[in-house]
Amino acid sequence: MEAWLMTGRDGGADLHPIGNTPVVILVRPQLAENIGATARAMANGGLFHLRLVAPRDGWPQERAWRSASGADRLLEAAEVFENVDDAIADLHHVFATCPRPRHIVKTVMTARGGSAELRAMTSRGLKCGILFGPERAGLDNEDMARADALIRYPLNPDFMSLNLSQAVMVMAYEWCIATDSTPPRELMTNETHIATKGELDNFMRQLVKELDECGFLRNEQKRPGMVRNLRHFFTRGEVTEQELRTLHGVISELATNRRRKDKAMDIALTHSGETED
Amino acid sequence: MEAWLMTGRDGGADLHPIGNTPVVILVRPQLAENIGATARAMANGGLFHLRLVAPRDGWPQERAWRSASGADRLLEAAEVFENVDDAIADLHHVFATCPRPRHIVKTVMTARGGSAELRAMTSRGLKCGILFGPERAGLDNEDMARADALIRYPLNPDFMSLNLSQAVMVMAYEWCIATDSTPPRELMTNETHIATKGELDNFMRQLVKELDECGFLRNEQKRPGMVRNLRHFFTRGEVTEQELRTLHGVISELATNRRRKDKAMDIALTHSGETED
Repeated sequence: MEAWLMTGRDGGADLHPIGNTPVVILVRPQLAENIGATARAMANGGLFHLRLVAPRDGWPQERAWRSASGADRLLEAAEVFENVDDAIADLHHVFATCPRPRHIVKTVMTARGGSAELRAMTSRGLKCGILFGPERAGLDNEDMARADALIRYPLNPDFMSLNLSQAVMVMAYEWCIATDSTPPRELMTNETHIATKGELDNFMRQLVKELDECGFLRNEQKRPGMVRNLRHFFTRGEVTEQELRTLHGVISELATNRRRKDKAMDIALTHSGETED
Repeated sequence: MEAWLMTGRDGGADLHPIGNTPVVILVRPQLAENIGATARAMANGGLFHLRLVAPRDGWPQERAWRSASGADRLLEAAEVFENVDDAIADLHHVFATCPRPRHIVKTVMTARGGSAELRAMTSRGLKCGILFGPERAGLDNEDMARADALIRYPLNPDFMSLNLSQAVMVMAYEWCIATDSTPPRELMTNETHIATKGELDNFMRQLVKELDECGFLRNEQKRPGMVRNLRHFFTRGEVTEQELRTLHGVISELATNRRRKDKAMDIALTHSGETED
């Protein structure tokens, strides 16, 4: 597991690696903007170690810092190598991202499957890396022969070309959520809480009472079904105690207003000598 | 389910939506490059419908086409609206992406949970949309009040700021793989096949025979363990029939070469009058 510190914004966020996280290795990257965007995506996903193999336009390049949006620490710590063999020499396990597996015999994993393996291996203390190829051509056959397995994203087969930093984003995302236990759906209640059935029932009683009073439920035959339908509506999604109080206020206010208007109408009608039933 | 056609590269890939796919709605986007990169990410993930609410620098903008890398059709079909209400008026269900939920009561989903719901809803014929906020500030409170639920990626809490097109990439990726059944790990064998245990045993017998012949297994006490360890090694990962044939050839060649050398050595030793045991 990683923990990250952020103490200031001078020179970007104060990002540090804590724990054993995989190395992202950009092989012969062409555009500095993509190197910077890669650093940003890595920081989003809790990755820190960036290696560059023979970056086309040299290193460092100012444009990378501009597209890193504060992930400067990763760029400052980036290591540059002349070739893939040197860049992976100290690693125990290496994955290679590859959109189209060619005529080779190789283990192919999904981003999700690969991330699970990376989590398992890094937790055993193994140093792992992920190779990403150059923008135009991707990794070549020699690069792939150095990897333990390929990682391939099962995306739209008719539009497979991902931007380099987008490809890194997908892996960083999968790495990060591989140990995440956020529930897929949750009502964020902040200062209030989900209403109990008793609180809901209090509200329903007030509502029915006011609806009885204004005559909305005067059809005795339809009354049980109408009340039941309202109850169905108010139990459709979770509702908070605070919302019930607001709804309570809405109904009181509408009812009071109606009674005020009724009274004003009565007075007006009395004054004009008319009556209504 | 979607199917995509790609017939040419003039004006980009020939992408068409087939089936009911969610609309991506960029709210007050600032940079044309991000609009183009969004279109590319959408195409990667099999999304087609792009809507723009009040793009800062107007629309169309040539820079968007340059960063779309061939996803031109999505940009050409993009619809522009003045406000969020107009952009979502025909939709049944709307999600809003939001990195930091504020003091509101709202359902929050993960990208994965949200994608599962989008798949379920679109398969029922409901029109769905996902709101993405402007680069600098994200969606405002009024925008979020219009959404059925928020989607929040559980990424590095100390570096939450995703590039706009990266945020779209994560949702497009999750949308795409939500119905994907690719195994997480698979040996891609192409023209060959995974070796049967019988094929492996044939190879092991040849190997042991050659090793016996060259004396590598001459220690009778250690011999069974050594053979077993070799067998452990050759069963560690899957091996293909083709690879076994290659290894067979490697061993034959090494053995033949050794025998040739042994013979040459014998002749040399005989000529020089020396012998070795």
